[in-house]
Amino acid sequence: MTAYPNMTREERGAEYTRVRQEFELWKAKGLKLNMARGKPGKQQLDLVSDIFSLMQDPQDYVSDGIDVRNYGELSGLPAAKRLFAEILGCRPWQVFVGGNASLQLMYDTISKGYTHGLLHSPRPWCREENIKWLCPAPGYDRHFKVTESFGFELITIPMTDEGPDMDAVEEAVKDSAVKGIWCVPKYSNPDGIIYSDKVIRRMAALKPAAPDFTIMWDNAYCIHEFEGDYVKFPDILALCEQAGNPDMVFEFASTSKVTLPGGGISCFACSEANMAYMEKLLSIQVISFDKVNQQRHVLYLKDKAHTLELMKKHAAIMGPKFRCVVDALDREIAPLEIASWQRPKGGYFVSLNAMPGTAKRTLALCKEAGVTMTDAGATFPYGKDPQDSNIRIAPSLPPVEELEQAIAVLCTCLKLSALEALGV
Amino acid sequence: MTAYPNMTREERGAEYTRVRQEFELWKAKGLKLNMARGKPGKQQLDLVSDIFSLMQDPQDYVSDGIDVRNYGELSGLPAAKRLFAEILGCRPWQVFVGGNASLQLMYDTISKGYTHGLLHSPRPWCREENIKWLCPAPGYDRHFKVTESFGFELITIPMTDEGPDMDAVEEAVKDSAVKGIWCVPKYSNPDGIIYSDKVIRRMAALKPAAPDFTIMWDNAYCIHEFEGDYVKFPDILALCEQAGNPDMVFEFASTSKVTLPGGGISCFACSEANMAYMEKLLSIQVISFDKVNQQRHVLYLKDKAHTLELMKKHAAIMGPKFRCVVDALDREIAPLEIASWQRPKGGYFVSLNAMPGTAKRTLALCKEAGVTMTDAGATFPYGKDPQDSNIRIAPSLPPVEELEQAIAVLCTCLKLSALEALGV
Repeated sequence: MTAYPNMTREERGAEYTRVRQEFELWKAKGLKLNMARGKPGKQQLDLVSDIFSLMQDPQDYVSDGIDVRNYGELSGLPAAKRLFAEILGCRPWQVFVGGNASLQLMYDTISKGYTHGLLHSPRPWCREENIKWLCPAPGYDRHFKVTESFGFELITIPMTDEGPDMDAVEEAVKDSAVKGIWCVPKYSNPDGIIYSDKVIRRMAALKPAAPDFTIMWDNAYCIHEFEGDYVKFPDILALCEQAGNPDMVFEFASTSKVTLPGGGISCFACSEANMAYMEKLLSIQVISFDKVNQQRHVLYLKDKAHTLELMKKHAAIMGPKFRCVVDALDREIAPLEIASWQRPKGGYFVSLNAMPGTAKRTLALCKEAGVTMTDAGATFPYGKDPQDSNIRIAPSLPPVEELEQAIAVLCTCLKLSALEALGV
Repeated sequence: MTAYPNMTREERGAEYTRVRQEFELWKAKGLKLNMARGKPGKQQLDLVSDIFSLMQDPQDYVSDGIDVRNYGELSGLPAAKRLFAEILGCRPWQVFVGGNASLQLMYDTISKGYTHGLLHSPRPWCREENIKWLCPAPGYDRHFKVTESFGFELITIPMTDEGPDMDAVEEAVKDSAVKGIWCVPKYSNPDGIIYSDKVIRRMAALKPAAPDFTIMWDNAYCIHEFEGDYVKFPDILALCEQAGNPDMVFEFASTSKVTLPGGGISCFACSEANMAYMEKLLSIQVISFDKVNQQRHVLYLKDKAHTLELMKKHAAIMGPKFRCVVDALDREIAPLEIASWQRPKGGYFVSLNAMPGTAKRTLALCKEAGVTMTDAGATFPYGKDPQDSNIRIAPSLPPVEELEQAIAVLCTCLKLSALEALGV
């Protein structure tokens, strides 16, 4: 097959007629497929069903002498802190264990900055003239929306193959209105990139003008390899400390994609001084998060090694789905030279860059054919991709047989929109 | 026994010597007793142990067609909404089901007012010159601290036998800086008063100057009778609606003292317009609260009638503890005319008014003898009881045999501090 850009207009016209027919056939099927969100599939949920048979014995209600059923222990069960600390490579006393949603802990950290200020804030952020926030893009739409909802100005930082463009970050933090940055450092959402050691060290060593500049280090996919073995990852808290920036980072993680999205546990990790400051504020807000569920997770996951065994089972389900997506793209799209994509080994997404100006059109066509995808632009601040190019594919939810159809539809739509853009 | 105020100085001197000896004997025992917080006792926690044996069958993971284990359903499971709606007497679509802590939902409501404004706010509260908040006192210290932490000016509203002094409330809300009021309408914390119908109707019919004035209706003890049958209680949402104030109230409740304080579920209930507004803000913050635990509670509590049966079992444990406290006060303190107290039939506290100027001293003596109580003043804004009189007794945690000792210590300390104040 000739690459589309190298075709003559007539060749493209013929191809368009052919692909249009393909598209109409898909439409006629009346599909209802969803690759919109990084939602685990039913098979993955069923993996952990035995979590519900725990907590049967009275001794299970007690952890380190604490009755997990009663009030108390604001920052979480010590055993749950130890579990997260081992997984993240930090120290147990740096961990605050929350409820089922790390997003809520992230939102709350930003909200606390806004209402009360963070540890080194000269004043609450609501008293600042304006606040700017660095958004490596493509990135996670929910992150961007949190900072947008507080009225911060979102600054796009380009992503490179090793993580955020650190030249751009180092330049941007010279502005004291820049108060923080969003990061998904391992298997970044959506690119699936692992930040390089160099990027991470430069991040930890930043010398921002704002004394309360905060790295929101969302380690959402810290143990979420679906291909190959667990990849070791540096402890950002230690690196920041070594660089003289102990209070510059909050790290986040959860078991949403380890046990259950609708009933997991989450955490943030930070320096001792940040912890003391945040606990003081959080003690006004909550007596404790759900310690029963924390204990259930401690009993179920046991430790990092045992958790990694469970992640291998997730990988056995996720791996084929990602291969299905990438194989289809390799086969159908690569020869046409109309898009490029990452080949992640972990995380929940395949990030595809279509021909500039065709992402929206592609996804509108997908919708027409019954395939729901993340909105075009969602991976950029304000939902606006300046290139109208990036498409986030989330292959986790549909079973493989549905996924094969969904990705075939996407390929058809990529072809159609490229042909339209190139002219037929 | 002659009342202390009617004794001669010599009689009081002799009594002081006797009571002081009693006190020294208590001190010598090296007690470590706690009546500080409304924490359920172990017997109550053990009541609900069979909640852990639920969720064993795959069909339990699905509720109204929703897989409770996965992401989604921001406002909670429909079945959990129905359960809370039946208990509160409101409608299911008025209910948002949260995590284990209603305090967190309350904090978040205030925080949203501060960061974004509530539905009818002319601007976010952080943009207002100053915000005032009505605090019926004695009241719940954690409520007061939430509004204090946002820098609001706390206005004390006297409590009467029927609830907050509505003349004072009606007068106060003429000030447009007054943005809301805290209420615990049934078995108020700490007085154990049920707001009268008249008070509730006047509350619902308020015509505040602030368009975004908000009643924070914390129905924490809505089904928490420990003596006698369940007492019906009006639906504040319907009353506000009838009075033309549909958006003026947020109601809160939880199962913290129904199932487990460390692992229950909570809710807020509000008008349709408030719900739409809050969901829009909350969708930025959280994908959903723990739906697995919501489902566990739906399966366990079933409906209001079945929940009330469980509450009878709590009552069988709580009733004797409250009788132990009130009987001791009747026997030891009533004849001395140095204090008065409420005789609640539900809730978690006995509110005692000691001789003005003696509450702090009484509790310092208690501490000396190994009995921890809620700090004096805690039931008033800023932790300052202008009379230094109110003492909140929380009898739920200690077993009866410990409670008998704790209350005996309290009686001794009340006597000592009264004698000191009267002069010996």
